[in-house]
Amino acid sequence: MTNQFSTIAPDATRPIGVFDSGIGGLTVVAELRRKLPHERILYVGDTARVPYGGKSAETVIRYSREISNLLISEEAKMIVVACNTASALAVPTVSREYSVPVLGVLEPGASAAVRATRSGHVGVIGTKATIGSEAYAHAIRSFNPELRVSSVACPLLVPLIEEGLFQDEITEAVLRRYLEPLLRQGVDTLVLGCTHYPLLKPAISKICGPGIVLVDSAENCALFVESLLMEPTAPKKEDPRLDILLTDPSEGFLRIAEKSLRLRIDSLKIRHIGK
Amino acid sequence: MTNQFSTIAPDATRPIGVFDSGIGGLTVVAELRRKLPHERILYVGDTARVPYGGKSAETVIRYSREISNLLISEEAKMIVVACNTASALAVPTVSREYSVPVLGVLEPGASAAVRATRSGHVGVIGTKATIGSEAYAHAIRSFNPELRVSSVACPLLVPLIEEGLFQDEITEAVLRRYLEPLLRQGVDTLVLGCTHYPLLKPAISKICGPGIVLVDSAENCALFVESLLMEPTAPKKEDPRLDILLTDPSEGFLRIAEKSLRLRIDSLKIRHIGK
Repeated sequence: MTNQFSTIAPDATRPIGVFDSGIGGLTVVAELRRKLPHERILYVGDTARVPYGGKSAETVIRYSREISNLLISEEAKMIVVACNTASALAVPTVSREYSVPVLGVLEPGASAAVRATRSGHVGVIGTKATIGSEAYAHAIRSFNPELRVSSVACPLLVPLIEEGLFQDEITEAVLRRYLEPLLRQGVDTLVLGCTHYPLLKPAISKICGPGIVLVDSAENCALFVESLLMEPTAPKKEDPRLDILLTDPSEGFLRIAEKSLRLRIDSLKIRHIGK
Repeated sequence: MTNQFSTIAPDATRPIGVFDSGIGGLTVVAELRRKLPHERILYVGDTARVPYGGKSAETVIRYSREISNLLISEEAKMIVVACNTASALAVPTVSREYSVPVLGVLEPGASAAVRATRSGHVGVIGTKATIGSEAYAHAIRSFNPELRVSSVACPLLVPLIEEGLFQDEITEAVLRRYLEPLLRQGVDTLVLGCTHYPLLKPAISKICGPGIVLVDSAENCALFVESLLMEPTAPKKEDPRLDILLTDPSEGFLRIAEKSLRLRIDSLKIRHIGK
């Protein structure tokens, strides 16, 4: 993948800024923790305005700019847009407005899908806004114009995940409805084009079977972040902090962070954005 | 029901202001059109921040105040909070801040349920925030402290409705999971405590059977509005306007307004609220 950013010097005092509309971006945080265990992370979840997946580009750009301003005021050394909708709709605009790198989950996922496919037919699932933007299809074809891309918007998955219904017959029925048309078309690689979706990986694997490679945009995004850091922050005595700012108190947030993703959170504060 | 408001003199030039987080409040508009066919209506749908049902009281109060200010600046003669979540969390605070009546859907629904029940056991379904507030249970018991109230939060129904899946086996499976425990407990009256839910009335009736009275908060709210108007606006040559302001463009909005609720919309504009 072309790396449009210069690499970043180590600076343990400044956090990596990460944001999402809600809890989905925590899957990216979990991967960052695994690959870069000594980096401080500041996460913003825009729970007062979640979800982004059905909203317009103009609104998602405005929200992404407001959160990026907040992360910059907290001295973030880079901004990871851990939300596919904002990556598709806002990163192309917002990334030009800051002196630190602003990177999304979309290109790393697209690049991994291009490397994974053997049949040349890639499936993509995501929110309405992500799929409607055709950003994955464009990114995949920019790497290899020969590939065929089939996409399906899956608007019910985020609500099911926010309810914690990771293994449930209703979730399975919804997944079957979204995935079976893609499987019939013969895709051999499926991009989980929403940072919420890795939480459904076992349920998705069960439907897809072993013949389909699942591309996890969270994991590939963390690999990309790793490649940008000139050298990882050196280990210190104490573990690096994970601080969370939410725009509205969220009941399910801590439960999913701690139980499903085994993240240790050092602080969780409510911060209003907008008015 | 105690009427805490003085009645309102006819004023055809000023609209009735109505708001909801999204499309749900249109069910109230449809009932207002039926009962008060000559009133101008100005509707605000806060589609940039939809849904409200999982958000905190503080945030829902802030959003309700911002929208009420907008309606007042457009000369609304009364404000109908056509959203159960905002009615439960925000109306008690916000209604004290304006010189025009601000009324919610909650008390009219509670009052109708009290009149309908024979067994003395009322069921209520709504969003997490509405059910968590226990506002229906309090309102029902304020009319009759002897009644038993059983409530279930149904967080997946609004996403299914926003997808237009009114008659669908997935919707039916989700409804069965929410409703069967209530039915087993022996409720004879079910309050549809969310203005989205009347769109699922046929599916809910099918599961509940003819023995259960469904209380539609939209219909009862419209009856209450009617009782507040000293006399309805006189008929004029042209039909009265229905103007819509949305905070974000919404793909499904016009489809549901026109096809499912047969509303004629005179104008639809996008208006940002907040920053």
